[in-house]
Amino acid sequence: MTTVVMLTAENPSGELVDSSQPLISIEDQGLTRGDGVFETMLSSNRSVRKLDSHLARLANSARMLDLPAPDNQALTSAIALALDEVETGPQTVVGEEHVVKIIISRGTPEAGPHCWVTAAPAPSSTLDQREHGVAAMTLPRGHDPAEDGAYPWLLTGAKTLSYALNMAVLRYVKKQGADEAIFVTEDRRILEGATSSVLVARVENGVKTLLTPEPNHGILPGTTQGAIFTAAREHGWELGFGPLYPQDLYESDGVWLASSVRLLAPVIRLNGNPLPVDKGLTEELLSYLAQG
Amino acid sequence: MTTVVMLTAENPSGELVDSSQPLISIEDQGLTRGDGVFETMLSSNRSVRKLDSHLARLANSARMLDLPAPDNQALTSAIALALDEVETGPQTVVGEEHVVKIIISRGTPEAGPHCWVTAAPAPSSTLDQREHGVAAMTLPRGHDPAEDGAYPWLLTGAKTLSYALNMAVLRYVKKQGADEAIFVTEDRRILEGATSSVLVARVENGVKTLLTPEPNHGILPGTTQGAIFTAAREHGWELGFGPLYPQDLYESDGVWLASSVRLLAPVIRLNGNPLPVDKGLTEELLSYLAQG
Repeated sequence: MTTVVMLTAENPSGELVDSSQPLISIEDQGLTRGDGVFETMLSSNRSVRKLDSHLARLANSARMLDLPAPDNQALTSAIALALDEVETGPQTVVGEEHVVKIIISRGTPEAGPHCWVTAAPAPSSTLDQREHGVAAMTLPRGHDPAEDGAYPWLLTGAKTLSYALNMAVLRYVKKQGADEAIFVTEDRRILEGATSSVLVARVENGVKTLLTPEPNHGILPGTTQGAIFTAAREHGWELGFGPLYPQDLYESDGVWLASSVRLLAPVIRLNGNPLPVDKGLTEELLSYLAQG
Repeated sequence: MTTVVMLTAENPSGELVDSSQPLISIEDQGLTRGDGVFETMLSSNRSVRKLDSHLARLANSARMLDLPAPDNQALTSAIALALDEVETGPQTVVGEEHVVKIIISRGTPEAGPHCWVTAAPAPSSTLDQREHGVAAMTLPRGHDPAEDGAYPWLLTGAKTLSYALNMAVLRYVKKQGADEAIFVTEDRRILEGATSSVLVARVENGVKTLLTPEPNHGILPGTTQGAIFTAAREHGWELGFGPLYPQDLYESDGVWLASSVRLLAPVIRLNGNPLPVDKGLTEELLSYLAQG
């Protein structure tokens, strides 16, 4: 059961609601138009990782969609209320990780936008990816999303509820026996995963370099990638920003998919072929996240 | 108030539900991921226009998203039930047009996909567009959607609930004083409206030609455009399929935006400049739709 905290006019900092009952109007534009924004976060021991980065990205997404600016104080209270509930109930597992989401929907035309927070145990399938790695496959993105970046009406960089394409991609790669897609341009340049950022490590002559595809307006800025890069630099890593091609992945010392709940999953196969795997590097990069 | 008919396990052909109450789970993936498909149709006198075309496109959308194939007989019954309700109530206005929608959502992970039909009076703002015309503005689409057409995982051509971009575009153009956007490629080739197809008429030496941008996998096939083209050909029009540029619109004998509820709205201004308007042609094309 997912714990749900609704931010309401009566309780702007949120109130627990019963998610076993229908809670959403059939005319909610989050439903009828995918018209809303969201963030997905990871919490453990009642603390949400890099909450500030998520709130900043949420505010940016809301601004791009002309939704009201989120009230960060209210959201922080609502998250605390949700975590109190999931971490103190009779079924609490000590140390269990939780997925925390914030959703802002445009709501019905009459009532207008509304916002809620959910919390639920992190799915074991995701935790497995962190532990055992993932099989990825490259898929053409059709066009380079950088082409869209100059036009704010295309919402590039906003994390919206309109996620049907990402879900279709995951279904597609699963049918092919893979866990995640890595989007590439027509000239095979690496972009990002369907639900993750791509990280690549190179170790040469004692110099460790961490790379990710060149940031541009066409790739959603990854909060996990950002956190790892900041920490890695402090620990003496060189940082690099693409371009990266599949060859670079095969010739690397490690490839990972980074996202908020998965954290860091080593890519162990690409298009069915083995990739270099280095448990020591995975543990090192994960330890940076634990400190953050 | 919108009339809602839910297709349920107990009533596979639909049952009336009270849409003033929340009906949707907060974990419905139609809401959390825009993961579902829909069709919007127009009815008058209890008859939905070109229902077969809509059902065919819905089936195609569902197939592209790996959703269960819609049961057309059940949907037809559900639509009849909804129209019975809206066209026989105490507030019925004789001859009033209604917007009828079918939505298939992926539902919750536990309960799976579900489907419903809604019916509500056609908004006067849309009917106004038919009567008084629209101001349109061209907006770059960023990339040519034909680039995406070869890749089924990108869902090009499926009508999904992930409509946040289209809604953002409408908000953007309204701030600029226009009613609708006409997407163009980087080289200014006309694609489609944000929620409509683009039709252009040319009359030369007694020969009437109706044009629309070249169909490809990047443009949603318009059921209204299709119906008008079929009828126009039967009435002796030549048909043409782009490429079209803004110049072609300025040098035409009439430009329209076609969509299921709007039917056919003359574009009276493009980027603030007047376009040729011919009421006779509008009436002629509308009359073809009335026969269909």
